[in-house]
Amino acid sequence: MSLRSLGVELHCRCIQTESRDIRSLISTVELIPANSHCDDTEIIATLKKTSQKVCLNPKVHWVKRMIKRFMSNSRR
Amino acid sequence: MSLRSLGVELHCRCIQTESRDIRSLISTVELIPANSHCDDTEIIATLKKTSQKVCLNPKVHWVKRMIKRFMSNSRR
Repeated sequence: MSLRSLGVELHCRCIQTESRDIRSLISTVELIPANSHCDDTEIIATLKKTSQKVCLNPKVHWVKRMIKRFMSNSRR
Repeated sequence: MSLRSLGVELHCRCIQTESRDIRSLISTVELIPANSHCDDTEIIATLKKTSQKVCLNPKVHWVKRMIKRFMSNSRR
């Protein structure tokens, strides 16, 4: 039984996510695992030029591939 | 030929990494991919209670499993 079904107000940081493949614009990403405030893992990217924060969908293919590449530590 | 071999001064944020499995203490993690300033992907965790920043080694098994779990969006 999730918190939401108990009527508990959840506070996810991301309201919407960017679906376009913006990998080349991203300098860092922050992973926020599902927790007592939000049922979903959230990914917040910081963009290179503007330092703007953009929410990404963890289920989207290019996001998964990007995280995998970061973890494999290859720049290509 | 890496930048370091060209004698270019690299500026990684992490000087040392935490090897103990501190998954239960972590609220978020920031992934900084290898870039012109640093040859290595860096992972900086923020701790729950103190908001302290701790560097993690991307090659360590429990770190890889943690990121994988975050991406699979399961709380367990």
